[in-house]
Amino acid sequence: MSRLDINIRRLKAQRACLNLAAEAISGLTGPVFELGLGNGRTYDHLREILPAREIFVFEREVAAHPDCIPDEAHLFRGDFHDTLPRAAERFAGQVALIHADFGSANPERDARLAAFIAEYLPIALQAGGLAAADRDVGFARSEPLPLPDSVAPGVYFLYRQMDRRPGGAR
Amino acid sequence: MSRLDINIRRLKAQRACLNLAAEAISGLTGPVFELGLGNGRTYDHLREILPAREIFVFEREVAAHPDCIPDEAHLFRGDFHDTLPRAAERFAGQVALIHADFGSANPERDARLAAFIAEYLPIALQAGGLAAADRDVGFARSEPLPLPDSVAPGVYFLYRQMDRRPGGAR
Repeated sequence: MSRLDINIRRLKAQRACLNLAAEAISGLTGPVFELGLGNGRTYDHLREILPAREIFVFEREVAAHPDCIPDEAHLFRGDFHDTLPRAAERFAGQVALIHADFGSANPERDARLAAFIAEYLPIALQAGGLAAADRDVGFARSEPLPLPDSVAPGVYFLYRQMDRRPGGAR
Repeated sequence: MSRLDINIRRLKAQRACLNLAAEAISGLTGPVFELGLGNGRTYDHLREILPAREIFVFEREVAAHPDCIPDEAHLFRGDFHDTLPRAAERFAGQVALIHADFGSANPERDARLAAFIAEYLPIALQAGGLAAADRDVGFARSEPLPLPDSVAPGVYFLYRQMDRRPGGAR
C-alpha cells in the first residue's frame, strides 16, 4: 500500500465517519467542535453536512482557503492546550460532536495529544454526543460506535458519550 | 461537493490514471519523470507500481517524508523552469512517462505552467510515451488517452506522444 493509497483510505474513512456522525446526532441540539482547521477541507465538509449547526474551530495558525475560514466568533485561535479547556468549560455538557484530526508521523506525540483531548471530551460533550478522530481518543464513560462498513478498524475512531441519566447505560 | 469530496475525487483520479499509465507503458523501456515531489505520496505510488523503472524527481525544496526521497542521482533540485529543459535535453526521446501534479487555486499560474511543461513533453517523451497531469498539458503531436471509467473529464489528464515513425499516426 503506497502513501497515496493510505491517504485515500484515510480521507474516505474520515468522510464516512463524519457522515455517519452527522446522522447520529440529528436528534441532538448543540454545537460542533472542529479541532484543527488545516486547509479547511474537513470544516467545509462539516458545514455542508450540518448546515444548521454552529461549528467552532480550534486553530493555532489559520492558513486555510479564504472561503473555508469561520468568522471570529466561531474561531478559537491559539494552542488547543489553552483553548480546549476554556471552550469545554464554556460549552460544558452541550456539544453534540467533536472532530479531531491531529495524527502525525510521531506516535508518542499523537498519544499525548489524544490523552489530553480525551480529558476534555466528557466535559464538553452532552450525553449521546460523539467524538470522531483519526487517533484513539477513547475517554471516560465513552463507548466505541460501530464504524461504517467501508472503514477498516484503526483508520478512524468514533466514540459516544454514554447516557448518564438514571436508567441510562451506566 | 465539499473540499473533502473534491480532494478524494482528485486523489482517486490520480491513482487510477497512474495505474492505467503504468500498464500502458509496460511495453516501453525508459525512465519516468515526476514533476514535483511534495510530501512524496505520488512518488511512493509510482515506485510501487513501477518497481523496475528509473524515476527522476523534480523538486525545488525537498520536504517529503524521509522514506520518500530519491537518491541524489534521481533528484533534479531547483525550479523546474531550469531543470526541466536540461533534463528533457539529456533524456530526449527516451522518457516513457511524465507525471505532473502542479495545480493550484490560481488558474492563470496553472495555465502558464501547463504551457511551459507542454513545450518540453514532446522533447523528452519517446513515441508512445505518456504524460499524466492534474492540469491540461496537451502538447504538440499528442493525443488524449481515454480516461479510466471512474475518472470524470477535467479531473485528470492523460496524453500520448503520437508515433512519428513512418506509417505511424502522423
